[in-house]
Amino acid sequence: MVQTPVKMLERVEPPGPVGTHCILELYGCRSELLNNADYILRSLRNAAQRAGATFLKETFHCFEPQGVTALILLAESHISIHTWPESGYAAVDVFTCGDHTMPETACHFLTQAFESSQYSLHSLRRQPPQTITATARTPLVLAA
Amino acid sequence: MVQTPVKMLERVEPPGPVGTHCILELYGCRSELLNNADYILRSLRNAAQRAGATFLKETFHCFEPQGVTALILLAESHISIHTWPESGYAAVDVFTCGDHTMPETACHFLTQAFESSQYSLHSLRRQPPQTITATARTPLVLAA
Repeated sequence: MVQTPVKMLERVEPPGPVGTHCILELYGCRSELLNNADYILRSLRNAAQRAGATFLKETFHCFEPQGVTALILLAESHISIHTWPESGYAAVDVFTCGDHTMPETACHFLTQAFESSQYSLHSLRRQPPQTITATARTPLVLAA
Repeated sequence: MVQTPVKMLERVEPPGPVGTHCILELYGCRSELLNNADYILRSLRNAAQRAGATFLKETFHCFEPQGVTALILLAESHISIHTWPESGYAAVDVFTCGDHTMPETACHFLTQAFESSQYSLHSLRRQPPQTITATARTPLVLAA
């Protein structure tokens, strides 16, 4: 009996959401902007929106005598900022997953928002396993 | 009249706090741990403590059907984690400032906490300007 070769279904791994982690140094910023928590949070939310990401939650802290840390949680990951108004410096990172997001756009927006005279931006590809489905996750609204 | 040269005070720039940003990929983790928000938050707080950092605030979110994002705000910067329990994967970053902190120690703790079978760790030096004083900032407890 001649065996018919079984046709194997080719398993194509989904490409997975591309995770890009941007490390941004902002120099020469306007100091008062870096000490204004309301302005900072508003700017991060705007940056997320411009990156095509979905804002979910935030937390922040003001330091003595100056400086602010703010973290915003996105459906696609997060944005953080740590500011040193006395030096016009802010350390930022923008991490987003998914092909629809543009983390570099968020970085460029923040560069302008804080009137930075000089900046450096490094974009790193995160290395998720290929088994991560390309399907976006839904934030569970009822969760804390 | 012979002018006496004015002795200029030499301005010595403080070295500034060294900012280290660790990018950690955790593979082959125990899935149920990656979907347990309480365990995740506890682990991040423990990791911060082992790094010599001071926990201040946290926020987190649970995704549908699974996965957690948690951000903890430290006096010395932050730790973030984004988990994909279905793939046993977590994307972590640990950013700390100050010579007294050991972010790699936090990373190694998290590797064990989530029973990761494989991981990759990249440590980046952040580039604050030298004008940042080496003096640690005090969190303003009264702030929101």
